[in-house]
Amino acid sequence: MFKTVEWKNNRVVMIDQRLLPNKEVYNTYIDYKQVAGAIKDMVVRGAPAIGVSAAMGVALGGLSIKTEKPAEFKKALEKVTKLLASTRPTAVNLFWGIERMKAVVAAHPNASVAELKKLLVEEARRIHQEDIDICRRIGRHGGALLKDKFHVLTHCNAGALATAGYGTALGVIRGAIERGRNIKVYADETRPFLQGARLTAWELMKDKIDVTLITDNMAGYMMQQGLINAVVVGADRIAANGDTANKIGTYSVAVLAKEHKIPFYVAAPLSTIDIKKKDGSLIPIEERGCEEVTHLRGVAVAPKGVKVRNPAFDVTPNRLVTAIITEKGVVRPPYRQNIKALFQD
Amino acid sequence: MFKTVEWKNNRVVMIDQRLLPNKEVYNTYIDYKQVAGAIKDMVVRGAPAIGVSAAMGVALGGLSIKTEKPAEFKKALEKVTKLLASTRPTAVNLFWGIERMKAVVAAHPNASVAELKKLLVEEARRIHQEDIDICRRIGRHGGALLKDKFHVLTHCNAGALATAGYGTALGVIRGAIERGRNIKVYADETRPFLQGARLTAWELMKDKIDVTLITDNMAGYMMQQGLINAVVVGADRIAANGDTANKIGTYSVAVLAKEHKIPFYVAAPLSTIDIKKKDGSLIPIEERGCEEVTHLRGVAVAPKGVKVRNPAFDVTPNRLVTAIITEKGVVRPPYRQNIKALFQD
Repeated sequence: MFKTVEWKNNRVVMIDQRLLPNKEVYNTYIDYKQVAGAIKDMVVRGAPAIGVSAAMGVALGGLSIKTEKPAEFKKALEKVTKLLASTRPTAVNLFWGIERMKAVVAAHPNASVAELKKLLVEEARRIHQEDIDICRRIGRHGGALLKDKFHVLTHCNAGALATAGYGTALGVIRGAIERGRNIKVYADETRPFLQGARLTAWELMKDKIDVTLITDNMAGYMMQQGLINAVVVGADRIAANGDTANKIGTYSVAVLAKEHKIPFYVAAPLSTIDIKKKDGSLIPIEERGCEEVTHLRGVAVAPKGVKVRNPAFDVTPNRLVTAIITEKGVVRPPYRQNIKALFQD
Repeated sequence: MFKTVEWKNNRVVMIDQRLLPNKEVYNTYIDYKQVAGAIKDMVVRGAPAIGVSAAMGVALGGLSIKTEKPAEFKKALEKVTKLLASTRPTAVNLFWGIERMKAVVAAHPNASVAELKKLLVEEARRIHQEDIDICRRIGRHGGALLKDKFHVLTHCNAGALATAGYGTALGVIRGAIERGRNIKVYADETRPFLQGARLTAWELMKDKIDVTLITDNMAGYMMQQGLINAVVVGADRIAANGDTANKIGTYSVAVLAKEHKIPFYVAAPLSTIDIKKKDGSLIPIEERGCEEVTHLRGVAVAPKGVKVRNPAFDVTPNRLVTAIITEKGVVRPPYRQNIKALFQD
């Protein structure tokens, strides 16, 4: 099986998701600036994977700082975290991963630079390992919700490629299959970046999970034909009230699910919940470049100079979310209260 | 301005819509089999344009028949109409155009072969000219529904390129603009064939109409943001109760429009209404090849061998249709009764 992101010999190795499924290429980064570039350019994407990658970026940045003085080290590390935090605005795991790394430094005020470097590497590797464990727990909780012979629609890629491994939404599907249930997946291709066509289809086929690719605008038709029993998606940021920012098009799928009385599940780790954001209107939505819409792998599919919108995410209001599947269990409405409780255990 | 399809020196000339917007190439067909191929391969598409092209195909087929005996001519013409009728199943205008041509022959039982050939060519040219007039009338009726400063979402291409000229849905937009109203258009790119990105954006930019391209899965977000005041789409076949078959994804847009209380208009000539079909469940839905989904202009965007669905159309139930805009005026619910009345004048 492939590894999405890995810490190896004090380097960060990532599968280049821009080249999938045509080529399986692994990039090795020796510099935190390269990691920041990889996040921005979507070599790696998916909220949990971004969180893990950012943490590894901080570790890499830490290793590169040439000083023996802890105060100088901490100051130089700020530059590292600042650059990494500027890469993408929506997925909160980016900031969460960076905060975890900062907290390690803060928790060891008397450590030497050598010790801090070691602690940062250990913390990045811990975040990586934890993410896999968390995904497996999400899969165990969520898998119980998918009945035998269910046809499950998913949007974008919230799979092994979006996490350190196993996946959130696809983790739920894997969890159901591990319970012996027969699951058929419909994958929205997810324009403009085609994460569904390129990534979800690829990783499910690698895992021999039954997957059928459709274009985004076929989801409504499939539901109308009675072919979809549940929707499971990931999340880039969940507000305190359960409003969920996820890949553009998720909101449309949620509206369609409601129209057809199909359960709509969000699968995400607690690190994706931004308890400081009261509701979804406060989540920043990244707008990306036009060429993602006007070009496909370098080929123009629209007239030169056409005006384009390219919001990368949308917010699904909590009223459309049947349940949020976390590593601590399945959360149902009322979300404000039940999400708060998750953090109080 | 370009011509979508034209009868010229006993040949059929079509703009090759597969090559737009990158290349503006006109194909000349001397054989009805080429016209059938052009319809099947989507050199020409859009229900009214398919109807016109099929009629011209019948005329071309008629001219090629080498006999002086009317009985033999009529028999040979059956082969022509049969092939043309087999090209695409959903757009009823195809069958309507062919029936109009057959009716001319039936109406002249004593005509010579030379006379029949002349009559067929005249009828094909008449259908072509009528279609432009009909679109302009649709535009006049529908234009009144779009208020000044409206932002209008359209799906697929129901423009000059989908008709003999002017368009149905885009005819409504042109009609509003001719009334002096400021209209901004959002065009869904319309995967898999990208009629919105390639054709709607192209023809509106040619006409200096304000158009912004979005991917299909952004429509819900745009509505949620309050950026859409009305939806106008074309149709491939409308059942007697107003259920409307149109390009895949239209149904999803209609559900989203209902959720946001945005009017959803269908613009189509009477020739698109199939009064013999009681409701939309009886409309055949064409399923096209996988490669339209897995490849884009020859470039693979999905793993080799992935399972794919590719329904080319879906059916929007009449309850989601605010009004149907025809050349005879704007039809509102109850549709069964009001559509029937259209044909009884």
